[in-house]
Amino acid sequence: MSRTIVARLATLAIVLGIWFFPVPAGLSPQAWRLFALFAAAIFAVVANALPILTSSILALAAAVLTGTLAPEQAYSGFANGTILLIVVAFLVARAVVQCGLGQRIGHMVVSVFGRSTLGLVYSVFVVDAVIAPAFPSNTARSGVLYPLTFSLAGIASLSLSSALWLTAMAANPLGTEIARAFGVDITFGSWLIASSVPTLTAMVLLPLLLYRLIPPEVTATPAAPAAAKAALATLGALSRHEKIVAAVFAGMVALWALASPLALDSTAVAFLGLGIMLATGVLTIADIAREGDVLATFIWFAVLFTLSSQLNELGFMGFLGKRLAAAMNGWSALLAGLVLTIAYVLLHYLFVSQTAHLLALFGVFLDVGVKLGVPAAPLAFLLLFATNFFSGITPQGSSANLLFAGSGYLSQGELYRLGAISTAFNLLVYVCVGLPWLAAIY
Amino acid sequence: MSRTIVARLATLAIVLGIWFFPVPAGLSPQAWRLFALFAAAIFAVVANALPILTSSILALAAAVLTGTLAPEQAYSGFANGTILLIVVAFLVARAVVQCGLGQRIGHMVVSVFGRSTLGLVYSVFVVDAVIAPAFPSNTARSGVLYPLTFSLAGIASLSLSSALWLTAMAANPLGTEIARAFGVDITFGSWLIASSVPTLTAMVLLPLLLYRLIPPEVTATPAAPAAAKAALATLGALSRHEKIVAAVFAGMVALWALASPLALDSTAVAFLGLGIMLATGVLTIADIAREGDVLATFIWFAVLFTLSSQLNELGFMGFLGKRLAAAMNGWSALLAGLVLTIAYVLLHYLFVSQTAHLLALFGVFLDVGVKLGVPAAPLAFLLLFATNFFSGITPQGSSANLLFAGSGYLSQGELYRLGAISTAFNLLVYVCVGLPWLAAIY
Repeated sequence: MSRTIVARLATLAIVLGIWFFPVPAGLSPQAWRLFALFAAAIFAVVANALPILTSSILALAAAVLTGTLAPEQAYSGFANGTILLIVVAFLVARAVVQCGLGQRIGHMVVSVFGRSTLGLVYSVFVVDAVIAPAFPSNTARSGVLYPLTFSLAGIASLSLSSALWLTAMAANPLGTEIARAFGVDITFGSWLIASSVPTLTAMVLLPLLLYRLIPPEVTATPAAPAAAKAALATLGALSRHEKIVAAVFAGMVALWALASPLALDSTAVAFLGLGIMLATGVLTIADIAREGDVLATFIWFAVLFTLSSQLNELGFMGFLGKRLAAAMNGWSALLAGLVLTIAYVLLHYLFVSQTAHLLALFGVFLDVGVKLGVPAAPLAFLLLFATNFFSGITPQGSSANLLFAGSGYLSQGELYRLGAISTAFNLLVYVCVGLPWLAAIY
Repeated sequence: MSRTIVARLATLAIVLGIWFFPVPAGLSPQAWRLFALFAAAIFAVVANALPILTSSILALAAAVLTGTLAPEQAYSGFANGTILLIVVAFLVARAVVQCGLGQRIGHMVVSVFGRSTLGLVYSVFVVDAVIAPAFPSNTARSGVLYPLTFSLAGIASLSLSSALWLTAMAANPLGTEIARAFGVDITFGSWLIASSVPTLTAMVLLPLLLYRLIPPEVTATPAAPAAAKAALATLGALSRHEKIVAAVFAGMVALWALASPLALDSTAVAFLGLGIMLATGVLTIADIAREGDVLATFIWFAVLFTLSSQLNELGFMGFLGKRLAAAMNGWSALLAGLVLTIAYVLLHYLFVSQTAHLLALFGVFLDVGVKLGVPAAPLAFLLLFATNFFSGITPQGSSANLLFAGSGYLSQGELYRLGAISTAFNLLVYVCVGLPWLAAIY
């Protein structure tokens, strides 16, 4: 109890300390105050002063009541299509679990890969990497993986599968557009060649690291495949509810994969699936009534998303980039490139969207690097890959994390700790393996 | 089961029938298609074809996937401050009930007014009418009344208390601004004089009608006040949680009442109160996790709100007004005034916000009436009062209804039936009592 009080006092000290600190030249008071609120909100969660819902609600109330944000701006995150997609994906995942299909798929995966826990984790990575090029939304893909895995493996897998393919994450093509202005022309094929070596290395090594960090209670399970097969035999044929859920889910996956060419909105596809599940009774209003934790996730994520995007719109992120560039004047190209990459990754603590991070900082950092003599192509690729592999650094670092972070398998503190370690590990792999590979091919 | 299938087929027939009907001249195809989806969604609920959540989710998915609405427009309702206020009020109300304060207040009310069920209902009406002039948001006021009453009395009471005072509902002052353009000057005092006779009449009679329509299991409860006093004695002093909830709630009420003069956002005040309740532990994350029905209400209300406002923005409401004016050409002033008032009330079936209804139709209807020779002042007042008393016509007719509609005390079908009857009754009172009164004073 007294630890909580100390942590709360520290949070208060941070918010007041930044708030009343003289506003740095080049920043508006509004941007500075919003930074005070946002930094304190994140600190409160990391230091266990407040749960993430409480912390973000208080930051939102403070931002509006002090006039730092206008109400319309402050609430805009609730209408964000990606965030609504998460909310609906949560409810759809509930149907998959409830009708028994989740358990059946689990038994099927175990019957094939279940000889060891590590085998199961690799199976998630493989499924994810294979379906990724057809899913420009890693958030939609998280909805596909979620019924297979509740653990950190989902977050870790998505952070790498998105880096593997140009079309595996919405921000990737945006980044290639920005890179083109610096003379770096990236295609589907050249992206895959550049990413393959570091990404596949990370995909092989990261499960081993996670396995060390959170050792499963059981590791070798030689009898599991046979037991899973027996359980499948006991389950018998698909029930009526399972068939409906499977059909609706397959339809959603097909429409998500076709979302780009057919110009379909992924969120509306999810709403359609949810509506059909409710209309056919495989999900009932009473089921929804038990999903209050989805409401909590919706609220805190929408709030943090808004605070972060407003921080960006108020010019705070651009200001940081410029200060960094000024500080690095005269550095060697290699050192500058490395420091820019590390800073780019660390700054993701301030972002609640990979796309927003890319739009705010990718161009600025690439520009600074090129002016300091860093070759454009390797730096562009490294930062583009970072935009994917840093997604797990915080639970809210990507909307694709939320299903897994919300599963309750790990505490917020553990998610931050493991997120920091696995992101640092990814950074190490992409620098030590990716940089020589990029130097060799460019 | 077969009744549900017939109702669903009828819903399908309605949506397809309107969709493929030739678009009336003067309307865009988009507006017409959105009307098809909205009308079918409401019909599906009234006819028990689908629950309101399912119906609105499917309408939303259809609107976006057919290109009738752009995704950003379609999801905008989720960021609406009034809707978020409801969501937070639901969660705050949960704290009032859970800590025991709700039960204690209930015992206190019963100990004073508890001789009969009717006495209890009147006590709600009196409390509401007395606090109303200080609450420009009937939605915020619904959060104050909710812990006192779960029943239809709350909806009925708010529909009348809002009509009593110029400052009891957000749209009232807006309406007086519009009326000024027609030479009708309305002040706080002149509004109260004009509304007093019909509103107080309705306040006395409406509880008697509701009493007949939904007779309580127990009517005369002579021993109840003594029993309530005994229960209060058993409860003893306020617990720590009750004290905190009472203090936070009192603070919220004070800030809500001061929201206008201090330029505070009511929704942010509610978020602040919720944040403090979570931080002090009177409400826990586990409590929020049980509030999935709040999520369901949030979703369906945000969706219907958006569909209705988009229908208005696409010009559908203005089109209806013009068609009506053309059809009434040459009618007598009295008949025209009556038909305009009745049509204004009935059209509230299409609206999910009193303010939106007023902004869309009040000026148009007043203009049509004046041109047909109806005296401006009585017509303006009648339509302004209607903007309040029609709020209960559907469960979603006002955001102030949602707490009560979501309490589960009455089914959606019953809410529609009782809403229609009590709104028709209010209309009768305001025409038969209000019109002569308005004619006498103007």
